[in-house]
Amino acid sequence: MYYNNSRIFVRKWGETLDIKRIENTLKELNKFSDPGEGINRLAYTDVERRATQYIIDLCEQEGMKVNVDAVGNVIARREGTDPALPAVAFGSHIDSVYEAGAYDGTVGIVAALEVIRSLNDNDIETEHPLEVIVFACEESARFGFSTLGSKAMAGVLEKEDIADLKDKNGISIQGEFSKYSLNIGEMKQAARSKEELKVFIELHIEQGPVLEKEGKQIGIVTGIAGPTRFKLQIQGEASHSGSTPMHYRKDAFLGAAEIALALEAVAQSEAPRGTVATVGVCDVKPGAMNIIPGMVEMKIDIRGTSVESKEVIIKALDNAIHQIKMQRELNINRTKMSDDKPINMDGSMIDSTKETCEKKGLSYRLMPSGAGHDAMNMAQLSPAALLFIPSKNGLSHNPEEYTSLDQIAVGTDLLKEEVLKWAQVSKKLVR
Amino acid sequence: MYYNNSRIFVRKWGETLDIKRIENTLKELNKFSDPGEGINRLAYTDVERRATQYIIDLCEQEGMKVNVDAVGNVIARREGTDPALPAVAFGSHIDSVYEAGAYDGTVGIVAALEVIRSLNDNDIETEHPLEVIVFACEESARFGFSTLGSKAMAGVLEKEDIADLKDKNGISIQGEFSKYSLNIGEMKQAARSKEELKVFIELHIEQGPVLEKEGKQIGIVTGIAGPTRFKLQIQGEASHSGSTPMHYRKDAFLGAAEIALALEAVAQSEAPRGTVATVGVCDVKPGAMNIIPGMVEMKIDIRGTSVESKEVIIKALDNAIHQIKMQRELNINRTKMSDDKPINMDGSMIDSTKETCEKKGLSYRLMPSGAGHDAMNMAQLSPAALLFIPSKNGLSHNPEEYTSLDQIAVGTDLLKEEVLKWAQVSKKLVR
Repeated sequence: MYYNNSRIFVRKWGETLDIKRIENTLKELNKFSDPGEGINRLAYTDVERRATQYIIDLCEQEGMKVNVDAVGNVIARREGTDPALPAVAFGSHIDSVYEAGAYDGTVGIVAALEVIRSLNDNDIETEHPLEVIVFACEESARFGFSTLGSKAMAGVLEKEDIADLKDKNGISIQGEFSKYSLNIGEMKQAARSKEELKVFIELHIEQGPVLEKEGKQIGIVTGIAGPTRFKLQIQGEASHSGSTPMHYRKDAFLGAAEIALALEAVAQSEAPRGTVATVGVCDVKPGAMNIIPGMVEMKIDIRGTSVESKEVIIKALDNAIHQIKMQRELNINRTKMSDDKPINMDGSMIDSTKETCEKKGLSYRLMPSGAGHDAMNMAQLSPAALLFIPSKNGLSHNPEEYTSLDQIAVGTDLLKEEVLKWAQVSKKLVR
Repeated sequence: MYYNNSRIFVRKWGETLDIKRIENTLKELNKFSDPGEGINRLAYTDVERRATQYIIDLCEQEGMKVNVDAVGNVIARREGTDPALPAVAFGSHIDSVYEAGAYDGTVGIVAALEVIRSLNDNDIETEHPLEVIVFACEESARFGFSTLGSKAMAGVLEKEDIADLKDKNGISIQGEFSKYSLNIGEMKQAARSKEELKVFIELHIEQGPVLEKEGKQIGIVTGIAGPTRFKLQIQGEASHSGSTPMHYRKDAFLGAAEIALALEAVAQSEAPRGTVATVGVCDVKPGAMNIIPGMVEMKIDIRGTSVESKEVIIKALDNAIHQIKMQRELNINRTKMSDDKPINMDGSMIDSTKETCEKKGLSYRLMPSGAGHDAMNMAQLSPAALLFIPSKNGLSHNPEEYTSLDQIAVGTDLLKEEVLKWAQVSKKLVR
């Protein structure tokens, strides 16, 4: 065990992190979940908004000043000895996908809170103000739109990007905004200027198998693979499953099946460049056993740090669509839902994190991130760092998602060290 | 036009059918539909039960004695001059699939009612009692179980066949039975004895393209292809779509896609024997764009009049499951949901219908039915006939389903003639 007690001593420095407190906060936060397998805390739902309020309350108990912006981002500020200086910001998100795990996003918020609590415990002040940020709607699970909050904060979100979004039950994002006193019309007020922030740091679970397989404690992210997403509407002809001979059929689902397999084949051939492609959504209509599917809606997610490789996949997808359309006499409509460019993380922050890891004797590796994160939008506003801790079996977006408390404590410790380095300790010496 | 007026003269016989009345009844009946595309009148829903009550009311207005049995079948009886004789029964169903057309089942009930009304209009009595039967839950769309009502009436339904059925919203069939004062425990009371019925006749739309393509007015069904149905539960591993490399994935949906295509391939090779196979249901979970599908539930429907051919398909399905399970490291669980044997229709009734068609100058063909029908269960209770009228473009289970009023009138006329032939006119001569 790296830590031998609930209130633990972190080598070389005098402050302590409270591992029991991390555990409890994580547990309490994850009580906010709709029923179902794993965690269900979808963006802009009652349960997610109540969880957000829970975090706000904890921040206020720590003496922070809390502000909620027009799209629901929470900014909890711990003033610096020089309030005029730009803030050192850190955070992540607490919304989840359907049937999610307990660590994705959540870990970054619990760790950020522990950093503040630990500084308060030890009366440590910083010259730069500190900001814990809980980004709204990081996951695309509910509205098909990801990192909404950090896009708004980075000033790269337009009203028309989100105004028409609806969830799978037909509930509009605008309706939910009104319900929770958020304001889509004032979205632009959520955008911040570059002068306000010195750096942004996000601690997150890897959500992949690499760190565990290589036995590393920390992943320092060099670049983020922006997702490109498509919606396919495949229209065939619904008819009776018993009385329509095979050669008269226009089965939308079989067309969808061929497209999904063609996509997998080309993604496999692009594996050396690390590009991936996934069909995560396939709704078959009308969806009865004795009706040939007349319509399928399929959603496709393509990711990679190589723009060229992504283009190879998109081209193959289009070829497959074209062929299958002809062969099966289907109508196929392809809509691009989003197209995020790969992002490079800040070099000086990567170097700083490497240095800290080496000083602390933490094993680490530099790596790209296959998943999108709020840090990729914040990188457009200030230098940004994204730090990974391992995910057991590489599982994420899954109730089996797991990162041990020890691993979380190591990440929290690194986060705190980086925060203090950038924010500069004022009254007390930390080392 | 075969008919030149709304109250039409049918060649050679003195009675009339009222085509306007057929049209109106069909229109009124189809007002009973839940919202959505086409007709949505699922078994044991409020709207379907209200539609059933509407038919009961119409039958009572015609002086019939109406009984609803323990599973919701309606039996409306017009007494014969000799009530001790077995009844001549005819009818079909009014429940529908999701997003259905306006003719499947419904046409048989509207035609049956028109036969009764026309006899009443002309004061025609029969020696044998007549029974119009509206079968409950013919469609499997809601509970995954077809021809429930006629199975119960034929005495081939066991309580355990249906006791645990739930619809896709988790609503149990038992709960719906209680709600509508039906009684699963008294199901056996719905079974009738062979002595009660002389014959059963069902008029139905073809739900396939054959009659239209061949320009025939009537299809006389020689045999019904019983469906064999399977549920597949395909378990993979849900994980993040961005950070799970292609070769670490266990994507349940891609396994499902391969199985569906393998099934199509073998069904195409069995096309000469007329066997068909369909995947109509494919639920992908958790169903988010950024999660690799961890679980798929797929429902398969295989139909044919050749038992051997169906077995070839089932064997190929099992081979595909076995291979894909290994190659993709998935768990695949196959459950047989139902397995209905092909049924031969009654030879003397086929001959009788042929004779009537010839006498009336109607074009017809003998044909198998790819779709299951209540007549296939009633055939176990008494000699049974199944008569088809054309479906435009062969479409059925589809809002575009269409059969013209003229075509319906031709079928109704044939139904009436057959009913009178088997029930024997008592007071008046019909020809």
